[in-house]
Amino acid sequence: MATAGKLYSGLPDGSLAEETFTTLLSRPGVRIERIVSTGQSSPTGFWYDQTEGEWVLLLAGGALLHIEGEAEPRALQPGDWLDLPPHCRHRVAWTDPDRPTIWLAVHYGME
Amino acid sequence: MATAGKLYSGLPDGSLAEETFTTLLSRPGVRIERIVSTGQSSPTGFWYDQTEGEWVLLLAGGALLHIEGEAEPRALQPGDWLDLPPHCRHRVAWTDPDRPTIWLAVHYGME
Repeated sequence: MATAGKLYSGLPDGSLAEETFTTLLSRPGVRIERIVSTGQSSPTGFWYDQTEGEWVLLLAGGALLHIEGEAEPRALQPGDWLDLPPHCRHRVAWTDPDRPTIWLAVHYGME
Repeated sequence: MATAGKLYSGLPDGSLAEETFTTLLSRPGVRIERIVSTGQSSPTGFWYDQTEGEWVLLLAGGALLHIEGEAEPRALQPGDWLDLPPHCRHRVAWTDPDRPTIWLAVHYGME
């Protein structure tokens, strides 16, 4: 049976205190997730350090994503994708506070 | 090392004879691909019957996707996603001839 959905439906109406995470598919070794940010960023000094890989695509809005060791955060616009291998330490330095930033994340390589 | 790219770059300029397929990530058990259609559809009577699962997201353009056993093809617009489990027989009945139709496909569950 084919499951289906609409990625741009059910968006938060205005800013929320927290990012929202919606799992769209979960199968052995792969998980696809929609993330909606409304101005959130990672806490100062916090770095994600994940045991699994994460391929992310920015679909709407805008973000600054900082990878440890790089001089400046990368500015992401709609259509920009990035593969973050396991233990590629990174943080979200900024997301647009004026409109929803929609990410598609494909997590892979988990046990 | 983080690899990166732009999903909406390098689009065909006008219609092409064939769909274009670009692998964006290939890891054990998962492969992420961009597919660009410019009016192509599956041959009459042809059904995809895949041993792996395929999660597809339509990002631009428009398509009609027919799943075997369903009375009518499903009309897909930007933001629509669909999970096609292994052996879910399907065909692309139509893609928009007037603008590129961009799909993101996540293949999973391969050996």
